[in-house]
Amino acid sequence: MRIDIITVSPELIQSPFEHSILKRAQDKGLVSVHFHNLRDYGLGSYKQIDDTQFGGGAGMVLMLEPIDTCISELKSQRDYDEVIYMTPDAKTLNQGTANTLSLKENIIILTGHYKGVDQRVRDLFVTKEISIGDYVLSGGELAAAVLCDAVIRLIPGVLGDETSALTDSFQDNLLSPPVYTRPASYKGLTVPEVLRSGNFPKIDAWRADQAYERTKNIRPDLLDD
Amino acid sequence: MRIDIITVSPELIQSPFEHSILKRAQDKGLVSVHFHNLRDYGLGSYKQIDDTQFGGGAGMVLMLEPIDTCISELKSQRDYDEVIYMTPDAKTLNQGTANTLSLKENIIILTGHYKGVDQRVRDLFVTKEISIGDYVLSGGELAAAVLCDAVIRLIPGVLGDETSALTDSFQDNLLSPPVYTRPASYKGLTVPEVLRSGNFPKIDAWRADQAYERTKNIRPDLLDD
Repeated sequence: MRIDIITVSPELIQSPFEHSILKRAQDKGLVSVHFHNLRDYGLGSYKQIDDTQFGGGAGMVLMLEPIDTCISELKSQRDYDEVIYMTPDAKTLNQGTANTLSLKENIIILTGHYKGVDQRVRDLFVTKEISIGDYVLSGGELAAAVLCDAVIRLIPGVLGDETSALTDSFQDNLLSPPVYTRPASYKGLTVPEVLRSGNFPKIDAWRADQAYERTKNIRPDLLDD
Repeated sequence: MRIDIITVSPELIQSPFEHSILKRAQDKGLVSVHFHNLRDYGLGSYKQIDDTQFGGGAGMVLMLEPIDTCISELKSQRDYDEVIYMTPDAKTLNQGTANTLSLKENIIILTGHYKGVDQRVRDLFVTKEISIGDYVLSGGELAAAVLCDAVIRLIPGVLGDETSALTDSFQDNLLSPPVYTRPASYKGLTVPEVLRSGNFPKIDAWRADQAYERTKNIRPDLLDD
């Protein structure tokens, strides 16, 4: 998979891609991530990329033309499955969307900043708009990093042990059951007896029960879907 | 505000804090962010911090003792308003939670990795569990960065123009209306006439209408709340 990220501040999200799973996935050749600094496509000698809003109001808006130039250049080099715009004004990312995107070959991720992009960018170029949640961030860069992490870890071969991703929360619409490790007793708190029983059918049943109970208590809405 | 982040890989989220708004907020003295590498509190000469699950299953679990030592050390130095654990098995972050947290003085953010932390950490130390959305990440580091960004930008003085945050999506439970900037016409797509009319009451009415329509189309659930 190839991911092209268009942003006004690539340096802001460099570190997540240089460590841990995102780095290993790139080292293994399973994904390549390319940053494009929108400023390089800015207009005139000042490399202008944003301007004030029509109709007035606080906050700058990213201009159409630099984004058009950047996306057109990328599209002239290869076909893209999706041009994704990260914005809170969109459907919210969930595990299903992450699963679907993990099967794509080439995607562009455009990140907003300030008040976002000129609406015509969304009308002309964007094929999918994604929000990572019902809160506002200072820019789309962290949202893009979150999307990449959620998607890349699902690509076969990225995680060491594939069953690890399959037993995560949400893959079966339930939250994960509690986990415990050594020591068995610590400051009076002990690990549930069943987990030390060696009785694996009983352990599976306990975990399924705990996952259901936790979901019912914390996120009952997940059970309605 | 002081934020202490406990993590197994602080280097993973260093860059978001060294640029843009998160950096400016720190430079202005409005927030201080401190990273604590859990490895420094590891057990024995190998500095062990994780171990396999009781009851079997893929994925390592972060151990109780190193986390206890780190949190106890911090708590001996000052009082904390919240000890937050980032995990998908929790209530989802929204703008209201971000607003509330932006008023706190000292918070600890604990980030999971691999299969998460020993359940007893959650039972003993954690006062608030937060998920950033219904998807799984390879660790809680990016989630912590997202939470910090959502919260820190709301602290008065962090954003240059305070009205900019107040007109964001979700502050009134509606998505933002479309924004446009120069040029007025580009490849046949023109900016809506009303935004160039100079008639501000009419512009406000148009924006309110667009915000409602967009919310109804993309996120009707927000209107039910």
